[in-house]
Amino acid sequence: MIFSDTDREMMALALQLAERGRYTTSPNPRVGCVITQNDKLVAEGWHVRAGSGHAEVNALAQIDNATDATVYVTLEPCSHSGRTPPCADKLIDANVARVVVAIVDPNPVVAGQGIARLRDAGIQVDVGLMAEQAADLNKGFMRRISGGLPWVRLKSASSLDGRTAMASGESQWITGPAARQDVQRLRAESCAIVSGVDTILYDNALFTVRPEAFAPELKDQYWRQPLRVILDSNLRTPVDAKLFSEGGEVIIATVVSDPERYVALTAVGAIILCLADDGNGRVSLPALMRYLADRGCNDVLVEAGATLAGSVLRADLVDEWFVYMAPSLMGSAGRPLVEWPMSKMAGQQSLEIIDIRAVGKDWRIHCRIPALIGGA
Amino acid sequence: MIFSDTDREMMALALQLAERGRYTTSPNPRVGCVITQNDKLVAEGWHVRAGSGHAEVNALAQIDNATDATVYVTLEPCSHSGRTPPCADKLIDANVARVVVAIVDPNPVVAGQGIARLRDAGIQVDVGLMAEQAADLNKGFMRRISGGLPWVRLKSASSLDGRTAMASGESQWITGPAARQDVQRLRAESCAIVSGVDTILYDNALFTVRPEAFAPELKDQYWRQPLRVILDSNLRTPVDAKLFSEGGEVIIATVVSDPERYVALTAVGAIILCLADDGNGRVSLPALMRYLADRGCNDVLVEAGATLAGSVLRADLVDEWFVYMAPSLMGSAGRPLVEWPMSKMAGQQSLEIIDIRAVGKDWRIHCRIPALIGGA
Repeated sequence: MIFSDTDREMMALALQLAERGRYTTSPNPRVGCVITQNDKLVAEGWHVRAGSGHAEVNALAQIDNATDATVYVTLEPCSHSGRTPPCADKLIDANVARVVVAIVDPNPVVAGQGIARLRDAGIQVDVGLMAEQAADLNKGFMRRISGGLPWVRLKSASSLDGRTAMASGESQWITGPAARQDVQRLRAESCAIVSGVDTILYDNALFTVRPEAFAPELKDQYWRQPLRVILDSNLRTPVDAKLFSEGGEVIIATVVSDPERYVALTAVGAIILCLADDGNGRVSLPALMRYLADRGCNDVLVEAGATLAGSVLRADLVDEWFVYMAPSLMGSAGRPLVEWPMSKMAGQQSLEIIDIRAVGKDWRIHCRIPALIGGA
Repeated sequence: MIFSDTDREMMALALQLAERGRYTTSPNPRVGCVITQNDKLVAEGWHVRAGSGHAEVNALAQIDNATDATVYVTLEPCSHSGRTPPCADKLIDANVARVVVAIVDPNPVVAGQGIARLRDAGIQVDVGLMAEQAADLNKGFMRRISGGLPWVRLKSASSLDGRTAMASGESQWITGPAARQDVQRLRAESCAIVSGVDTILYDNALFTVRPEAFAPELKDQYWRQPLRVILDSNLRTPVDAKLFSEGGEVIIATVVSDPERYVALTAVGAIILCLADDGNGRVSLPALMRYLADRGCNDVLVEAGATLAGSVLRADLVDEWFVYMAPSLMGSAGRPLVEWPMSKMAGQQSLEIIDIRAVGKDWRIHCRIPALIGGA
């Protein structure tokens, strides 16, 4: 199958439209759609949020007649009735001539059946145009559907000498306003944010998304606050913690049974999640991630100090790592970037640095962990 | 004084010529010279090494007649007889009409007297064209002549988590071949390299310059190996250390008197330098730097592990810092980037990151230390 320049141009546009759902579609994937007639663009659509119209339906709604049209869609049209009727049927009913699909939907309830249904109805279906870009846009959705785990991004803030806090735990603020604003974008892209109880105890952190801080144009649109998950093995989260007073849902993940604390925390709105122990008295991170995937979380952001960063990296759960590095020295008594003792040079963990860029006065180091990439 | 476009073009060329002495002129400054007649370039010269011709003399030697010429020189022509006769007199004898000077020579034996002598002879002298670039090229010379200290660059190699060695001291190799080649250039620009005895004990380091590694075209030119200074408070350097077998001079800087070790080390070619104690049984770094400046060292490179980096930074002796950062984690048990305990966020040492660039698979972070810049 050789695609034409028009095909490429239209699919690129469909990908741009899909991008508009970056902060809102979860648990659904980000999908864009473009319709042409006689190689002329006649309609555009994208998926905004679960429960609202799919990209194909939104595009079809823009035109009276789609007869003989070509439809470009970044993900295979669905064949099942979910919250909305199957898109494949809508396209058949609309009498379109050809459908160009970037990637097959890995969701087992679709998985090629949407394409089969279109072909059975005599529609030409061409698959694989800009597949890589389309998959990249939905890394979290693909990972969750195919592997039962979310796409996990780890965020750390450190000084140049790799310190994430003073020995006392003091850490506000390592990085400047521009870096914190950049983190807002990572949060907004995430279905859930995971952090440790220390951040609540030391910094009374909120972990909310403030669209006005990084994308003012989105402020008045539909928005969602990510789920917040506090790892709190011994239920030390205070009931007057600020995060109970604003933002999205809060899950307190623990390993202990303590009815009195359960009642107190539930009373201020927390959801108590008692998970398996990791063998060291801490919440099992693989169990947590599987739980979050089951809940429909495609993308998870772990905002971590030394201990949690060490645990999540050693559990081989991290897909991407963002280290915000401040131009400062916090000194050799400070807490490490990662609590992970190693003894031999041969045992060091190699990383793949994708890019380093200035963010205000700080620097953002964006890594992948090769071992995990190989194992993913 | 407003300089013409020709003036700027010719001084830029003179600065490029001065650059050619980057690795060889010390203890002298890097100086370039261009001569024009009727705004046409007629001669070029630069200073190669101490004892050989100055830039102006080398340029004059290219032409038979310099009558009414304009001479562009990046540093004030000298007025004193050093190893060569005064350049100001040479220019007067050559009947030049005008001399354009980038910066005044801060050397107290010149310090404006060269310019005065030219003006007394009726030659027009214009000063200050591209002064900043000319000063930048001779930061070490300027610092030494004006402040009695060399320009000090600190070089560290660390993992992303800020570790310079394993707990055992093992550190070969943190960074890759491209980073080590980049360090060759820093060494070549330096009059002296300072490191700790641990590097000899653990890595049997040589600290030599291998021009073929970073500038093959310079291989067959005049070259100099930097002086190597090993900080060895307790005289632990073994007499069979590799650095005695090749490269430049070796100074063992110590605080102890041990005639037997002195004799053994002197026998293999070491120069023993007994300096003041810093109060903790270690060599006083300010005393060492003053000694090196007195010896004519303009630029000093400190290749440091955690302890030496901490000492030299805390002594406020560092002008520039190059951290070669490997894309790896060496773990929380490793040695820190800098041995420097701090307890409060308010007490952290801020840095100014000038740039971060990829060097092979590693990254080079180039910093200045603001407090020191302010105090310099």
